[in-house]
Amino acid sequence: MAAKDRKQPRPRAETPKGFRDYFGPEVTERKAMLDRIAEVYHLYGFDALESSAVETVEALGKFLPDVDRPNEGVFAWVDEADGWLALRYDLTAPLARVYAQFRNDLPTPYRRYAMGPVWRNEKPGPGRFRQFYQCDADTVGAPSVAADAEICAMLADTLEAVGIPRGDYVVRINNRKVLNGVLEVAGLLDPTQPDLHAHERGIVLRAIDKLDRLGEGGVRALLGDGRKDESGDFTEGAKLTEEQVEPIMYFVAAGRILDQLMRAYLDAEWEALSGSVPPDFLDSALEIRKILQSEVDENRRSLRASEIRNANAIRYLEQLVERSQLGKDGIEELRQIEKFCRGQGYLADRIVIDPSVVRGLGYYTGPVYEAELTFEIPGEDGKPRQFGSVAGGGRYDDLVKRFTGQAVPATGVSIGVDRLLAALRAKRGEVAPPPGPVVVTVMDRDRMADYLAMVADLRAAGIRAEVYLGNPKNFGNQLKYADRRGAPAAVIQGADEAARGVVQVKDLKLGAEIAAEASLEEWKAQPAQREVPRSGLVDEIRRILGKS
Amino acid sequence: MAAKDRKQPRPRAETPKGFRDYFGPEVTERKAMLDRIAEVYHLYGFDALESSAVETVEALGKFLPDVDRPNEGVFAWVDEADGWLALRYDLTAPLARVYAQFRNDLPTPYRRYAMGPVWRNEKPGPGRFRQFYQCDADTVGAPSVAADAEICAMLADTLEAVGIPRGDYVVRINNRKVLNGVLEVAGLLDPTQPDLHAHERGIVLRAIDKLDRLGEGGVRALLGDGRKDESGDFTEGAKLTEEQVEPIMYFVAAGRILDQLMRAYLDAEWEALSGSVPPDFLDSALEIRKILQSEVDENRRSLRASEIRNANAIRYLEQLVERSQLGKDGIEELRQIEKFCRGQGYLADRIVIDPSVVRGLGYYTGPVYEAELTFEIPGEDGKPRQFGSVAGGGRYDDLVKRFTGQAVPATGVSIGVDRLLAALRAKRGEVAPPPGPVVVTVMDRDRMADYLAMVADLRAAGIRAEVYLGNPKNFGNQLKYADRRGAPAAVIQGADEAARGVVQVKDLKLGAEIAAEASLEEWKAQPAQREVPRSGLVDEIRRILGKS
Repeated sequence: MAAKDRKQPRPRAETPKGFRDYFGPEVTERKAMLDRIAEVYHLYGFDALESSAVETVEALGKFLPDVDRPNEGVFAWVDEADGWLALRYDLTAPLARVYAQFRNDLPTPYRRYAMGPVWRNEKPGPGRFRQFYQCDADTVGAPSVAADAEICAMLADTLEAVGIPRGDYVVRINNRKVLNGVLEVAGLLDPTQPDLHAHERGIVLRAIDKLDRLGEGGVRALLGDGRKDESGDFTEGAKLTEEQVEPIMYFVAAGRILDQLMRAYLDAEWEALSGSVPPDFLDSALEIRKILQSEVDENRRSLRASEIRNANAIRYLEQLVERSQLGKDGIEELRQIEKFCRGQGYLADRIVIDPSVVRGLGYYTGPVYEAELTFEIPGEDGKPRQFGSVAGGGRYDDLVKRFTGQAVPATGVSIGVDRLLAALRAKRGEVAPPPGPVVVTVMDRDRMADYLAMVADLRAAGIRAEVYLGNPKNFGNQLKYADRRGAPAAVIQGADEAARGVVQVKDLKLGAEIAAEASLEEWKAQPAQREVPRSGLVDEIRRILGKS
Repeated sequence: MAAKDRKQPRPRAETPKGFRDYFGPEVTERKAMLDRIAEVYHLYGFDALESSAVETVEALGKFLPDVDRPNEGVFAWVDEADGWLALRYDLTAPLARVYAQFRNDLPTPYRRYAMGPVWRNEKPGPGRFRQFYQCDADTVGAPSVAADAEICAMLADTLEAVGIPRGDYVVRINNRKVLNGVLEVAGLLDPTQPDLHAHERGIVLRAIDKLDRLGEGGVRALLGDGRKDESGDFTEGAKLTEEQVEPIMYFVAAGRILDQLMRAYLDAEWEALSGSVPPDFLDSALEIRKILQSEVDENRRSLRASEIRNANAIRYLEQLVERSQLGKDGIEELRQIEKFCRGQGYLADRIVIDPSVVRGLGYYTGPVYEAELTFEIPGEDGKPRQFGSVAGGGRYDDLVKRFTGQAVPATGVSIGVDRLLAALRAKRGEVAPPPGPVVVTVMDRDRMADYLAMVADLRAAGIRAEVYLGNPKNFGNQLKYADRRGAPAAVIQGADEAARGVVQVKDLKLGAEIAAEASLEEWKAQPAQREVPRSGLVDEIRRILGKS
């Protein structure tokens, strides 16, 4: 076999492409964050659910986002016992299956939270992983938009609980019904014949979802004949008439226009706006300008501005969908959500109505929402940019219906765990890693039992401690190991110390400080290594840890 | 599409066969237990590692346990980017890959813990799941058996930390080298030609591992010509001579014989033993009997008995392998582990040497260990039986070598999370589920904002609370919901109460108690429903929660 071994190539020690491992603090930091989130979810009455990571392909269905991506998909295989199985690609599709399966045993409404890995069979790329964590909260069986408002409020609480201060985030809400109203106005949606124009609507929705990347011009091209990208690839457009394009582009431009409007109030630059907003928006402009200028308190002015922006958003959307009952229903829901949030103390500085929130997923049917972090971090080009979205969700009333045939209203949010963690790190900046264990070195291999007794004493006192378990021959390696472990202290006991019943305790933190900056006098005054009786070991380590 | 829908069958809402979902307390109880375990592991200097759930099949290798099971295997599929991928079947194979991949960045020795699901593509059966949790701790790069002793001690601490009291568990240790020594004595292993007789050794190891199920007679049959099971299936034997079988059967019978020996000391029934133990074992018997009888304290006598059993085990094994250097090395390691544990205060009541511990996995090369719970639970037949094994592990010095070509010593333990959790539940008995959230009912749909403000107030005070989000028409359904949620209290505010600025608070726990057992006087004295001012809602709920 030794001969055979030489011929067989050794396996590569590599994570599969698009997968990664998480070490030490990466695991415990994420866990601490998820624990905080779970506490908030629990406080809101949500119960934990951990569904199977594996589902039948049949149960998962075809609700993947980004359906026009070439390599999108799931990891799937044929099982002898159960046909096609697949790894879950999100936590929502499994929830729909669980609710349909266990609905007679679950309370209705059913509030549940779930956290865990999901898998996407996408083409691996830099920074794009095929396994990542999600952290969801959903309410199934609640038709009232009070459920959506609750989740928006909870999302705000969650962000504050994990360490994003108020003012550094905003929860943006919108309503798919408003967008559908716009599509109805554009002649692309007939509520009595829901399948008509489905193809064009698909193109329009995907185009709108790409606004960030393509800009208004790119979206407009996709609504018309189509668009050629930088590589020369041509994407077929929806081939709408100019009359159809117009209301959709008003919707697409809403975010930009409402921003301009707010700036105009402050700068009195009305000219930039003429033509892009309905004239009556400018009527009350001078009045609004006065209100904003009369606020001397910065926070109150900012809140007032957000309130005005919310009111403007509603008015703007109202004008877009005034010929669509569906659209008007959507706006009424937005008003209600805003009212429910306000009644609980979540004002416009935290929860805003924003027509630019669309959310890519096809399955949303009502309110959609998104949490955005508004503080700036350096972008790839070095210029500061807003951190951006860390969570999103909405109402999806049809997912359970797939299984049961009966519509079950549901709404929920998914937090992008890795992005939120990255945001917390960016916010916090570099910090020292948590201290490592105390390392008891091995001077005399035959007295291992004594060294083990030392770490046992330390652990019994609640102090994280290790005995050096590598080859003890080279003592320098042991101190290097202690350094690498971030040990606050090292314990040394040779034959001489053992005979005298003492140990040497090396204060590695102090040692590092002294080496870096102390004067000779300080060095002498604070020796980084002290001899203490063996019986005083725990106290000495406590002393060192206490002061560090 | 509506027409098409009708033709397409609806997907089944079913977990795939062999998989399951975990709800509410099932999730949070397991999490609480794993948190306790992680604390102990951390105290011992182990660092968290969360490796990818997906590995290349090449990296996973063929180290599955129970290689003679027909449906054993992994869930695997072909990936466009990376060839064959598979879900991990344990946490050890990924650790070997991680260590080989990142060994230059990791400390050596590397102590790591990991917890998470693993997947086995086995034939699903009642109570046998294809996804389950493991919780492992391993030390890589530590040649000394001090690393094994450390893990045995940590295992004892872990069991106590999660709630298994001392006396209700025992960590049993053995050494593969002793078994290999026995095989050497039987002429089945030549250390200079390790591949010789590999086939027969495989049969012998698997036979020994089935001792529990087959009994000594069944094992003996498999060492000889073979064995026919109840279904008539014939399993080929190792075809050993009687001379070869004898030392192996002495090894197989060791546990039973050592038990008999202990009983004999206490009952002076030497006759049962004659012939089955070497004569000199009986020489000191009367003396040992005297020692045991002289202890009046029950705990000390039990500890002394365990110490004597440990000593007997060593002597017994020594006689079996006296012609094998490998076997003698193994016994020396067992002595050391026992000494290291004793030096840290882990005596023979917690850590015992037990020749019957074999551990099925083929990759163990040295010490093996197992944690067994010794308290009794009712078995399937209603008779009490010992709970049995909840964790096991050992030294596997060759797993990393597959990747790097260099032997890297490693040892570690895996806790069967579901079994340990089941043990804790069995130990604890039925307990009341944790209290649910306070439920604020909806009497008047138009005043939803007011109800939402109530739950917001309660949550701000740290009280878990929900507003009823189902259809509020039927008030009885709302109280049923509160009951199903295990709500300690329900809050009610109709138009009349709202006008008067009050709320009704229903103490559901007290209500249930009164309904069950209170006298009329008590009922009057402690009304289960009280009216309080809206501003006193939080205080009233606090009062109810405080007393329950």
